[in-house]
Amino acid sequence: MSEPNYSRRDFLESIGHLAGGSAVYRAALALGLTGATTACGSSSASDNNATGAAAAATPNTNAPASGPFVSPVDWPPGVGTGKSVTILGAGIAGMTTAYEMNSLGYTCTLLEATTKAGGRCQTIRAGDVIEETDSTQVCNFDADDSLYFNPGPARISHHHVNLLRYCRNFNVSLEPFINDNRAALLHQTNAFDGAPQTARQVKADLRGYIAALLTDAANSGALDAQLSTEDRENLTAMLKEFGALDAAGNYSGSSRNGFIESPDQEPNRQTIVPALSLSAILSSDYWRFQTTFAEEINQQASMLQPVGGMDRIAAAFEQRVQDLIHYSSIVSAIRKTDNGVRIEYLDGAGNSSSIESDYCVCTIPATVLANIAADFSADHQQAIDNFVYTKATKMAFQSRRFWEQDHNIYGGISWTDQGITQIWYPNNDFGSQQGIVVGAYTYSNSAGQRFADMNPTARLETATTEGTQMHQEYGDEVTQGISVSWPKIPYQKGAWGASDPGVLITADGNIYFAGEHLSILQGWQEGAILSAYHAINGIVGIDNG
Amino acid sequence: MSEPNYSRRDFLESIGHLAGGSAVYRAALALGLTGATTACGSSSASDNNATGAAAAATPNTNAPASGPFVSPVDWPPGVGTGKSVTILGAGIAGMTTAYEMNSLGYTCTLLEATTKAGGRCQTIRAGDVIEETDSTQVCNFDADDSLYFNPGPARISHHHVNLLRYCRNFNVSLEPFINDNRAALLHQTNAFDGAPQTARQVKADLRGYIAALLTDAANSGALDAQLSTEDRENLTAMLKEFGALDAAGNYSGSSRNGFIESPDQEPNRQTIVPALSLSAILSSDYWRFQTTFAEEINQQASMLQPVGGMDRIAAAFEQRVQDLIHYSSIVSAIRKTDNGVRIEYLDGAGNSSSIESDYCVCTIPATVLANIAADFSADHQQAIDNFVYTKATKMAFQSRRFWEQDHNIYGGISWTDQGITQIWYPNNDFGSQQGIVVGAYTYSNSAGQRFADMNPTARLETATTEGTQMHQEYGDEVTQGISVSWPKIPYQKGAWGASDPGVLITADGNIYFAGEHLSILQGWQEGAILSAYHAINGIVGIDNG
Repeated sequence: MSEPNYSRRDFLESIGHLAGGSAVYRAALALGLTGATTACGSSSASDNNATGAAAAATPNTNAPASGPFVSPVDWPPGVGTGKSVTILGAGIAGMTTAYEMNSLGYTCTLLEATTKAGGRCQTIRAGDVIEETDSTQVCNFDADDSLYFNPGPARISHHHVNLLRYCRNFNVSLEPFINDNRAALLHQTNAFDGAPQTARQVKADLRGYIAALLTDAANSGALDAQLSTEDRENLTAMLKEFGALDAAGNYSGSSRNGFIESPDQEPNRQTIVPALSLSAILSSDYWRFQTTFAEEINQQASMLQPVGGMDRIAAAFEQRVQDLIHYSSIVSAIRKTDNGVRIEYLDGAGNSSSIESDYCVCTIPATVLANIAADFSADHQQAIDNFVYTKATKMAFQSRRFWEQDHNIYGGISWTDQGITQIWYPNNDFGSQQGIVVGAYTYSNSAGQRFADMNPTARLETATTEGTQMHQEYGDEVTQGISVSWPKIPYQKGAWGASDPGVLITADGNIYFAGEHLSILQGWQEGAILSAYHAINGIVGIDNG
Repeated sequence: MSEPNYSRRDFLESIGHLAGGSAVYRAALALGLTGATTACGSSSASDNNATGAAAAATPNTNAPASGPFVSPVDWPPGVGTGKSVTILGAGIAGMTTAYEMNSLGYTCTLLEATTKAGGRCQTIRAGDVIEETDSTQVCNFDADDSLYFNPGPARISHHHVNLLRYCRNFNVSLEPFINDNRAALLHQTNAFDGAPQTARQVKADLRGYIAALLTDAANSGALDAQLSTEDRENLTAMLKEFGALDAAGNYSGSSRNGFIESPDQEPNRQTIVPALSLSAILSSDYWRFQTTFAEEINQQASMLQPVGGMDRIAAAFEQRVQDLIHYSSIVSAIRKTDNGVRIEYLDGAGNSSSIESDYCVCTIPATVLANIAADFSADHQQAIDNFVYTKATKMAFQSRRFWEQDHNIYGGISWTDQGITQIWYPNNDFGSQQGIVVGAYTYSNSAGQRFADMNPTARLETATTEGTQMHQEYGDEVTQGISVSWPKIPYQKGAWGASDPGVLITADGNIYFAGEHLSILQGWQEGAILSAYHAINGIVGIDNG
């Protein structure tokens, strides 16, 4: 498969061509090039950098905290009266579209292929059934509110403001999700003889060695051309703090690494774990991603999760659009008509049916949409056919919380270069006896394909074997495993979009497209919402003249 | 006041002199020089550093996860039968002592000066009364489980294993406490014209500039004497990730800083907030502590808090030792007798009373104990008289959660060089409308004394004025304030011990001392527990022969 050639610039320009210059701005708004954007930055940061213009004392508090974001509620009430829209797919994008367009007066019909709303926003609990294209699993976790598994989205960035606003307005309680736990492990089969190292150790050593090397360079005059004497003195003082250096500016480990414990040795809280060698760390993969992951803008603390499971969000949307949803309605064709669209589908009773409306907002994943008959333009059809999805698989097990009780790991993520890639410890109900550990979260195409190709039993065996390389208890203690391989989930056929949205962010006649894959936050629920806003604003912009 | 001259080495040696060599080991155990120690480190980290001996594939999983820790339950059952102990103070140290010694068969009496157990482990809710030596406040938060304020200890390190074991065994639910929130603010009156910067920005810029400078040094040959060619190449590759450098190894900001938003400008999620100037950051105080705080061993993620308030821990202990506690019992004298101790006190009815027992474990804070008549040795009395306590004050307000709704700050801490020092955002019940913000947490002696000297109204006014420098909403939105100044709280007279424990970790006759101030984790509840174990093990070691 080749990826479309639409660049981000093409994409903005294409909107400009479609509906005039102001549409660029509105589309930018809709796609989160503003409101959510705002959330990440601080206007003061740009206004007040020392090289910039003089700034007021507290300018960031004068700027609108959430910027000039235009959401669908800013359109005139009743703008959609007398108009109809058929929305395909009751995931977050589809339900957002239905919720907002219904509020604007549109007659909304939401067709959902499965028996439940939410799309990939799911939570699996005792008794839930996982149907893949060639297997069926039943979740045999114990029945307990604390024992759940989010196989799709599982965390929310604190600056994904639209999703967070819905959570607040819909009374979905949130709690912290931990990405960066210093007690978690980093593991690489060929590093340190396969012995996992604590994140605490590797992160502290990296900071320490970097600070010590730069201190050396500063003291040897290597930075004199770049730094004033005052800056250099401040720099070396700062580096002592940054890296926990000794008085001479050298690094040999610090209490940030933790304290020694060895059965052979008189225990002593004063003796710190010695530093790993810089060379050994550098020749490992630890630093390639694992130690910077939580620095990335969408993964920075605070990360959040709904209390009780991610599907609390889906349920909150569903509660508000339930009357608009036709469940078990499988779209068979998407047709253009003279005045709008006609959607042909099999209804819940297996009968052929169809619905005509002025507009369609199609949130069906491209992987699935590619196999549905449609009157799409050649460009749109080609983009759909070529759209690449990530092949993620997640697995989960129930277990005694040995990670808490024996290793002081409360939430967070351990990393490995094995196929399972990550182990996630539950962030909820710390201290209880049983917990759900995510035993694999693969997202590379090779590992994803490998796990997708296995039957569920083989997947769990592999995850157990690989997990045991990181936690000896694994093989004995984790049980009741379950897996979700998104490439094999009907009506999803992939985890999240990985191609450039390209032409699909433009309407094809009266057919609009939405879904996380068509946003600048692919793979995130905020992206699904932003894409819905883009579609809504495209339609309402026409109806509003 | 001068601090005692006892060093850590003196302290271990003094125990050795007291009770023979093995006591050093046992005392080390009791003071957490092992079990809790273990928790921080990874045995594999020391076994497997590249300069060390060859290591087994996963040696850290073969070592006991929690090490050779000896807790009071390891003593023979019934070892205390027929022996009695009077415990002074029903805080965490005193209740731990009562709980464990009662289990070992000792007849325990616990005298508590106030009407409730917990000591500084408190949670303040609607209607609670704060009595200071010269003021009375009533908490007028709205009555709601989510609206509480922990004026004393407010977080638990994930490797404070003894406290965590009690929480687990006593069914105290825990949830994450966030120290490091990248959306929180750093503020210094004289930096950046007083404009707060996001933690996200400062942390990303520091990493970026450090990485770029070291890349330059590496490329200019300045590190050739220290690094092999391979290491140097790995180093520069690592630094790109570490600092989010561009392909040429330069730093000019990255998406880790967030995206620009300005009312005057077409919003664009592609344009990152520009980097602050290195010189400006270096001349600020931001890097002195604020950006490394969460790297410290006792502050590293995951940090935890009890669901519903810290006093859930006190309540769980109290529930188990309630029958042993005499409330409103104010100790007036601590006397040595021929065979043990006699404690004189005013009972709840105001009558003089006394109790004789074989042992005393005194957990009364040194600040208070200094004013109680006692038969202490001259060395012990001098150590008590000279013991320095931190003068912390905390304040809290109820408010609309503007920090969440308008600034995407979910939990965590903002810092300022003003007296209030820190603002803590609640880590619980994200998304609800009202929250309790900790509007000041001072712990420097100067700021602590300044706030202690103010009346409660003046404190709150000052906190509001200072807080407004960081959040414009502050002055309008925070209400229902309350303050706790520990130097003025009766029977506490200070926040936590800051002197070396010195001679006070040795018994004075049959009088033993405990409390957080006599541990290697001063100011932490885990320290209170470790000090209790030290006292218990000292007594039981004698009774066990």
